[in-house]
Amino acid sequence: MAGTMNNPEGGELRIGIAGLGTVGVGVLRLLSDNAAELAARAPKGLRVTAVSARDANRDRGVDLSPFAFEPDAATLARREDVDVLIEVIGGTTGAGADAVIEALRAGKVVVTANKALVAERGAELARLIEQHGGALYYEAAVAGGIPAIKGLREGLAGNRIVSVAGILNGTCNFILTKMKDEKRAFDDVLAQAQALGYAEADPSFDVDGVDAAHKLAILSAVAFGGVPDFSAIELEGIRGVRLEDIEMAEDFGFSLKLLGVAKPRAAGGGVRQYVAPVLVPQSNPIAGVYDSFNAVVVRGEPVDEIMMRGRGAGEGPTASAVVADLIDAARGINPPLFGTLNAAAATGGGAAQAEAAAGEAVEGAAERRFWRLLVDDRPGVIAEVSQVLSDRALSVEKIVQQDADGSRAHIFILTHAAQRTQADEVAAALARLNCMIEPPAVYAVEAL
Amino acid sequence: MAGTMNNPEGGELRIGIAGLGTVGVGVLRLLSDNAAELAARAPKGLRVTAVSARDANRDRGVDLSPFAFEPDAATLARREDVDVLIEVIGGTTGAGADAVIEALRAGKVVVTANKALVAERGAELARLIEQHGGALYYEAAVAGGIPAIKGLREGLAGNRIVSVAGILNGTCNFILTKMKDEKRAFDDVLAQAQALGYAEADPSFDVDGVDAAHKLAILSAVAFGGVPDFSAIELEGIRGVRLEDIEMAEDFGFSLKLLGVAKPRAAGGGVRQYVAPVLVPQSNPIAGVYDSFNAVVVRGEPVDEIMMRGRGAGEGPTASAVVADLIDAARGINPPLFGTLNAAAATGGGAAQAEAAAGEAVEGAAERRFWRLLVDDRPGVIAEVSQVLSDRALSVEKIVQQDADGSRAHIFILTHAAQRTQADEVAAALARLNCMIEPPAVYAVEAL
Repeated sequence: MAGTMNNPEGGELRIGIAGLGTVGVGVLRLLSDNAAELAARAPKGLRVTAVSARDANRDRGVDLSPFAFEPDAATLARREDVDVLIEVIGGTTGAGADAVIEALRAGKVVVTANKALVAERGAELARLIEQHGGALYYEAAVAGGIPAIKGLREGLAGNRIVSVAGILNGTCNFILTKMKDEKRAFDDVLAQAQALGYAEADPSFDVDGVDAAHKLAILSAVAFGGVPDFSAIELEGIRGVRLEDIEMAEDFGFSLKLLGVAKPRAAGGGVRQYVAPVLVPQSNPIAGVYDSFNAVVVRGEPVDEIMMRGRGAGEGPTASAVVADLIDAARGINPPLFGTLNAAAATGGGAAQAEAAAGEAVEGAAERRFWRLLVDDRPGVIAEVSQVLSDRALSVEKIVQQDADGSRAHIFILTHAAQRTQADEVAAALARLNCMIEPPAVYAVEAL
Repeated sequence: MAGTMNNPEGGELRIGIAGLGTVGVGVLRLLSDNAAELAARAPKGLRVTAVSARDANRDRGVDLSPFAFEPDAATLARREDVDVLIEVIGGTTGAGADAVIEALRAGKVVVTANKALVAERGAELARLIEQHGGALYYEAAVAGGIPAIKGLREGLAGNRIVSVAGILNGTCNFILTKMKDEKRAFDDVLAQAQALGYAEADPSFDVDGVDAAHKLAILSAVAFGGVPDFSAIELEGIRGVRLEDIEMAEDFGFSLKLLGVAKPRAAGGGVRQYVAPVLVPQSNPIAGVYDSFNAVVVRGEPVDEIMMRGRGAGEGPTASAVVADLIDAARGINPPLFGTLNAAAATGGGAAQAEAAAGEAVEGAAERRFWRLLVDDRPGVIAEVSQVLSDRALSVEKIVQQDADGSRAHIFILTHAAQRTQADEVAAALARLNCMIEPPAVYAVEAL
C-alpha cells in the first residue's frame, strides 16, 4: 500500500506536516502564496492533507481547517493519506525523530529541516532508506534558504572537493557583526540578541558552535562521501571572542568569523572537521558576509571556488528550502542520500570520512595563527614573549603592543604557518611566563 | 533503438563529445582526473566513446586514441554508441547546433555549453524534446562553474521570483576592474586583455553585452517561465564607460558593473530584461565581485536574496558544469527544460515571459540615475543644467562638478527615482544646451 502511495511519479503528493512552529507555518503560507508558480513547476500537485502539533487550538495566523489534525507526529507519519512527511519539529529524539523514522519504515518520502537528526543519526536514516525504499530530503537542514546541499551534491558533483567551509550560524555571525560595528562586548550583544528573540534563552546551542557543527557534519558527508560524523568535529564557540580581537584582526587585514570547515588532512588520511572562530583574509568573499547571513564556500577541482550566500534561518528561507525538496520529490528527483551510493553510506563507506571517524591523531596543514596576550605593562615583556616564540622556531609575521595603561597591556601577534603541535607548545610556554595575566588566546587563520 | 540506448537508468552512459577546444579537452581531463569520485557519484559509469573536431591530429595534451573520431559532429550525434552528446562547439548555426538538433531528433540526451543556441533557439529545442523524448542540459551555458541553473530551477523552485540579475561576462568584469584598479581607459585595458588572450580579437560579443544577454535570456526563462526571449533584451555594452564614471560612482557609494537583469515590469505585464552598465550600491554583495568572477543574484519570495559567485568561464569551471549535467543524466535527474512544463514552454507559455515577448511599450519601475555631463567650463553652467532638471521635475540627490581646466568640466549628478520617459526628456533637453560638449551619459542605479 505504501508502495503505491509514496510513488512521486504517481500523481499528486499528499503531504503531512509535523510541527507548526515558524517553519511549518511558513511552509503552509508558501504553498498558498505561491500556488500559481507551484502549479507550473510541480504540475501533479502538492496537497497538505494532515498536520500535527502539540496544541491544536493555538492561533498561528493560518487556517488549519482543511487539514486533518493528529496530536501525535508518528501517527501522522503513518496515515494512509500522507505520502510525504515534512518534519519541522527538530531534535535527535522525541516526536520529530520518531515521525521521521516511522515514515521511512513505511517507505515514504521525508522532507526535514532537522539538522541534529541528520547529523547525529544519518547512518541509521540511510539504512532505513536502503531497507524500505523511501527517500529523505534535507536541504532545509543546512544554511536555510541557500541551496547548499543541491549545489554541492549535484551542481558540483563533477569535482574533487578540496574544502567546504561556511558561516553556518546566523546568530553567531549577527553577534560578531554587532560587536564590530557597535564596539560592544560579547555578553552585552548576546543579552540584546536574546531580548530581541534572535538568540535563545539558553544560547549554548548557537554560541558554543553545536548548531554550526550539525550543519558542517552534513556538508562534510556530502562533500567527501560517507555519512555525517558529528562526533569527530573539533568544536569551539565564540564565548571567548573579545572586541579587541575583532578590531585587531581587522587592522591586520582579516575578518573574525565563526566558520565550520571540512577538508582532507594533509597527512594520515581522513577529513578534518572543525567549528571555531577563525581569521579570514578580507580578500576572501566570505569575509564580507555580515549580520545574520550565512554563506557556504566550496573549493573543488576543477571548479575552483564557489560561494553561495543567503539567509540561513527564518520562516521564509527555511520554507523555501523545504518546498524545493517537495518539488524535487514531485519531479522524481532523488539523488543518492549523501551524494554517493546509499549502500556505501549506510555501511560507513566513503573512505576519507570513515578514516576521520576512526579518530586518528593526525596532523592538519600548517596554519598561520593570531595571538592575543594580556600581559603586565612593564619593560622587557615583548622580549620575553618573543624569546618563547623564537626558542620554539615559531616565526613572527607581525607583532603589535597596545592598550598599555601602566598596569597591563595587549600584545597581538600574527605567526607564520606552523603545525598545531608547535603552536600548542608555544601556548603552554607562554602561559608559564610571569608576565602573563591570563592564558593566551589563539585563532587560526583560515585561508580557505 | 535510440529509446533503449538513451535511457539513463539503463546503465553506463556512452558519451560523444562534439568539440575539442578548451572545454571539450577540460571535460576529458576531468573525467580522467576525478575518475574515483565520479565512480562513487555516478556508479553506472560515464564512458566517452567518440569525439569530433575539425582537426583530428592537433596535439591537445590528451590521449584521444581510446575514442572513435568523427570529423562531422552531426554524424557523431547519430552514432549508435553515443547515448549522450556533449556539445561544446557553440553557435546558433553550424556544426554544434546541427549536432544538437540531430541528437534531440534521435531522442538522445544533450549536454551543452552553447548559450547562443539555447538563448536564441530555445523554443525549437523544447519542441524537439517534446516530440522525441530526449533531454537537454545546459548548466555550462550560464555563469561557468556556478550551479546557477540548478540553483534557480530546482533549489529556489518554491519561490515567486522577484528579480534575477548577474555579472554574466567575465571579460567585461575584468575590464571594469582593471580600469578602476589601475586608473586606465577602456581602450587601453581592452587592448591588454586582447594581448593576454582574455578578450577576443573581435571583442564585440563580450563588450557589447551579447554574451551576457544570451545568459540572461536563459536565466530569465527559468526564473519567470516560458522559453528564452533573446530578442526582447535591451542591450548596452561597456564601450561608453569612462574611468571617471567608475571613479565618481565609487565616490557616490556605488560600483559600476555590467549587469544582466530580468524582473517583472511595474505595469503592463511581462518581464523586462536588460544588459547594461549600471551602478550598484556598495552594500550589495554583487558590488564586491571583481576581476573575471561571475555572480548571480536571485531575489525571491520568500527566500529573500541568494547570491552565487564563482568563475564564469575557463576550462575547469565549464567542464565542472558539463560533468554535473552528465551526472544528473546518469542519476535520472531531469527537471522540466526551463523549470515549467516543456509543453507550456514549447508553445510559448509562461504568461509573464510571453507578454514581454509581445514587446508592449510599458513602463519599468522608477529608477535613480547617474549622469555624466561634459560641459564648457564657464560661470552659469551648473545653473543652466539644474534648470533643465527642475523644469522637468527631476529631483537632484547629489551633484558634483570637477576636472574644470578653464575650458571644459565634468558635472556628475545622481537623480532621484524617475521613470525613463522623464529621464529621456531631460537627456534630450540637456543635449540641446550650448554648454554641452557631448550628449550626456546616463546610468541607471540598480538596487536589485
